Amino acid sequence: MSHCRVVQATRQIGYEVHMAELLRDGSSSGLMHRVAERRALMVCSPTVARLYGEALHRELARENPAVSFLVLQVSEATKTMDQVAAVCRAALEAKLDRRAVLISVGGGVISDIVTMAASWIRRGIDHLRVPTTLVGQVDAGIGIKGAVNFESKKNYIGVFHPPSAVLVDPRFLHSLPARHVRFGLSEIIKIALVRDAALFHLVEQHADEFMSAPLDGERAPVRELVWRSILGMVDELQPNLYEDRTYERLVDFGHTFSPALESASAYVIHHGDAVAIDMALSSAIATHCGLLSPDQFERMLAVFKRIGLPTWSPLLTLERVECSLTEAARHRGGCVNLVVPTAVGRAEFLRQQTEIPTSLLESALARNAAGAGSKMPPRVFRRSSPPAETASL
Amino acid sequence: MSHCRVVQATRQIGYEVHMAELLRDGSSSGLMHRVAERRALMVCSPTVARLYGEALHRELARENPAVSFLVLQVSEATKTMDQVAAVCRAALEAKLDRRAVLISVGGGVISDIVTMAASWIRRGIDHLRVPTTLVGQVDAGIGIKGAVNFESKKNYIGVFHPPSAVLVDPRFLHSLPARHVRFGLSEIIKIALVRDAALFHLVEQHADEFMSAPLDGERAPVRELVWRSILGMVDELQPNLYEDRTYERLVDFGHTFSPALESASAYVIHHGDAVAIDMALSSAIATHCGLLSPDQFERMLAVFKRIGLPTWSPLLTLERVECSLTEAARHRGGCVNLVVPTAVGRAEFLRQQTEIPTSLLESALARNAAGAGSKMPPRVFRRSSPPAETASL
Repeated sequence: MSHCRVVQATRQIGYEVHMAELLRDGSSSGLMHRVAERRALMVCSPTVARLYGEALHRELARENPAVSFLVLQVSEATKTMDQVAAVCRAALEAKLDRRAVLISVGGGVISDIVTMAASWIRRGIDHLRVPTTLVGQVDAGIGIKGAVNFESKKNYIGVFHPPSAVLVDPRFLHSLPARHVRFGLSEIIKIALVRDAALFHLVEQHADEFMSAPLDGERAPVRELVWRSILGMVDELQPNLYEDRTYERLVDFGHTFSPALESASAYVIHHGDAVAIDMALSSAIATHCGLLSPDQFERMLAVFKRIGLPTWSPLLTLERVECSLTEAARHRGGCVNLVVPTAVGRAEFLRQQTEIPTSLLESALARNAAGAGSKMPPRVFRRSSPPAETASL
Repeated sequence: MSHCRVVQATRQIGYEVHMAELLRDGSSSGLMHRVAERRALMVCSPTVARLYGEALHRELARENPAVSFLVLQVSEATKTMDQVAAVCRAALEAKLDRRAVLISVGGGVISDIVTMAASWIRRGIDHLRVPTTLVGQVDAGIGIKGAVNFESKKNYIGVFHPPSAVLVDPRFLHSLPARHVRFGLSEIIKIALVRDAALFHLVEQHADEFMSAPLDGERAPVRELVWRSILGMVDELQPNLYEDRTYERLVDFGHTFSPALESASAYVIHHGDAVAIDMALSSAIATHCGLLSPDQFERMLAVFKRIGLPTWSPLLTLERVECSLTEAARHRGGCVNLVVPTAVGRAEFLRQQTEIPTSLLESALARNAAGAGSKMPPRVFRRSSPPAETASL
């Protein structure tokens, strides 16, 4: 006897990414009407709590006393299951039921932790995201992922749990430190280079304004920067939100060599900078393959420079680059699928590692090392290289 | 400016529930071909490990050395996030990648823990379920849920994470203690009463065989019992797998008063027995409403009696019954939606609490107390009085 029954477990969910007005007096209604009369728990970091969270919570709690508030001391290095459990504990204390909602106000780490907690509590409750950083508003905050580190393995434990809405108000960016603007622009350039020449042009035009003073979320170029980036990101993410449809993802641009680089630097090199160095190398590879004109390559690098994004690191050795390609192939169904720009706003995949021979990688690395003002071939900087060897070259 | 973009986050997943042959020499191929050359981690309890797990693992590891094995000391009372973390840690040690698979072999608790771990590891990896108990094979093991207790709140933390397949081999039931057969039959009767008169007839016909000796998974009535229950369960679950489509669920039969009863007994009354007591009360209510004929009601109770399922408990006080109805309405979108049989194999919903006045509840409780040979309340449930449980029947 052989019986077999197929169960269809399709889940239909949709969510809104909304350009909202949350930071004008009495205008938090965009958040309020989504919470309505439900029980809720707002979560933020101490800094965001002080800058925005406490005021936002006060405003919500005035209309709905069942909105609780939790301040969580977080950092990328310490985001763990314990912090997710802390949110679950607060949710239990606040008597959140199945209809309740979590609200994350903050950057990627808070969003990660709250997304996971929302996914765990009573097998999944709603969560609203209010990203306050540029990376959060154009990248980390608008997808459906959340993850924490586990036993020192970065993002080993995670979930896919769509938010019920993402409320984006560029006015939050006013308080963002310049380096975090830079990290956000790195992800924006990623999306611009692979699919949106006009967005790249916008960055090119306004790079100095974006980097010289606090970002003014009332200004049209800033708002266009944010919204256009969101649209590009959503368009790329949507067909493969659960990362189970294809291994060819344009948003992987800048994300092939960067993990090894961040890890080699013990995460001293921030993700945004690592992505920039990765994009620069991938573009140099494209140029050496004859896929990208030197002019276009230089145009890209000029923008990197104006924003202060690095284009090379001695830690990105040939060995690490080749290991990263092997690792990428392992995670991308056997194909390297290196995303390389063929012009500003257009990209292709280099599918096989054989398309990227060692000699080509060496040339690309040397070019970027030289461009960054270094005379040293990057391969010298190996983890086990004794200083004597470095000196001799 | 108001920009809004809707992201479609629909996820298409399907999985097989398969009547498999896993316990014949060299026949674990049903499991083997699903694992193939992937990395895997099999998880079971000490008892199941000794009875089946070690042998199954040996057989798999002979073909694929990348199949690891974890024995986890589990119980319903101690299933927590720590145990999920223990599986995640073992998965990390066994170098499970995104394509890897977890295999749960065992009852509901192991299945709960492994489902959660599979959902967490790298944002979700495959898991295969091999349920070894009757409840697992016809109920807990074939859905998509997993949950653990949190801060003494039962099943507060959980996930929906469809298995990639459920492999059901009734031969596992041979080692199942009689009381666990009883618990399984309670869930089977649940499905039978609300939608499958022929299944109820099968239980009626073979109740003595099912309860008198180890279940023989080679025998046709046992196999039919399991498969028919699975089909009924799958049909009921599928349209509402994520419990977000409707609050009218026939599978809630027996699950309105049972949570309070289990809790009041400090979980000394097992879920299966609590469900039976709940079904008996719901059916008595139906009879008192004139929805179920006394004949049909007596026919049901006769089967309960032959199986040894309880039909009343002094812990199920009028107060607890009324609180349960209020609680049900809170969880079922404002409606009580009490499932009551109108005949063997057919059921209806009592939607409003006003349809079930206190006087009716009192009569129904008194009827079942009398039927159980009690003058209310002659017997005291104590942790140290296990014989009392059966003595009253």
